[in-house]
Amino acid sequence: MPGSAGEKTLMRIFISEADRHKGKPLYEVLVEMLRKQGFAGATVLKGVAGFGENSVMHTDKLLCLSTELPLVIEVIDGEEKIQQIIPQFDELMQGGMITLEKVRVIRYRS
Amino acid sequence: MPGSAGEKTLMRIFISEADRHKGKPLYEVLVEMLRKQGFAGATVLKGVAGFGENSVMHTDKLLCLSTELPLVIEVIDGEEKIQQIIPQFDELMQGGMITLEKVRVIRYRS
Amino acid sequence: MPGSAGEKTLMRIFISEADRHKGKPLYEVLVEMLRKQGFAGATVLKGVAGFGENSVMHTDKLLCLSTELPLVIEVIDGEEKIQQIIPQFDELMQGGMITLEKVRVIRYRS
Repeated sequence: MPGSAGEKTLMRIFISEADRHKGKPLYEVLVEMLRKQGFAGATVLKGVAGFGENSVMHTDKLLCLSTELPLVIEVIDGEEKIQQIIPQFDELMQGGMITLEKVRVIRYRS
Repeated sequence: MPGSAGEKTLMRIFISEADRHKGKPLYEVLVEMLRKQGFAGATVLKGVAGFGENSVMHTDKLLCLSTELPLVIEVIDGEEKIQQIIPQFDELMQGGMITLEKVRVIRYRS
Repeated sequence: MPGSAGEKTLMRIFISEADRHKGKPLYEVLVEMLRKQGFAGATVLKGVAGFGENSVMHTDKLLCLSTELPLVIEVIDGEEKIQQIIPQFDELMQGGMITLEKVRVIRYRS
């Protein structure tokens, strides 16, 4: 059954699998923050190749040995809620990028 | 060679790998519906981690044993065509979310 | 630390893993072009299933034997820079699609 609908903000966080915060993978730290602060959900996508600031190309060709592949964390929520968490991310991000887009959302309840 | 171009709608369907419809994986049912109804294409992306409504964190760390990873199905087509299929999805969705965005499209013909 | 921010263009290139240019995987050719022409980054996502123009369904179910899975290459940069590279892609694309969207970007420097 369709539930609430409306305009929300899609936040996409582009980081590397290699990024760490106090020894922990950065994506785990960010996703855990989102979960604790009551965001409705998050999806982590992993790239199979890519390059970033340093222009070094990374791929997963070497039997998945590469640990520097790109990650994209996707979060959809209200603009205000997202604007409130970004300053907390500022201290953790060591490069990478955040993008924001408006999307129309249809949310379903199980 | 570039073919048609113009403004289209990007529909993204966020579900779980664990979602089923009559015993079949839900993503297969949805993609098959899209194919049969003449949509130009669909892409299914699988997350490596995420959480949803229930706030339970899922990852693929345990040797790919997790079968509750997030899936994102992406479809790009005319707004009208997409608006017509959404009510058919309403009966199948058991949670999750659909987002809609306008995108500029350059389509190539092989 | 947050660096530059502002409105940028998200280009997403939808191709197949099977696409080739002079024997080389097309996604590698495209990513290499982006890197050489000074784009800030690129991320290649690989689908686990999908269908395209020919409506043939592809999945990775057969022990990853499928080599026709969909790929999405994502690039975020200025609209002008992206508009300049698209004509170069036109000659290489053998089907597939490019989409363009405006996104708000917060870029971090390591």
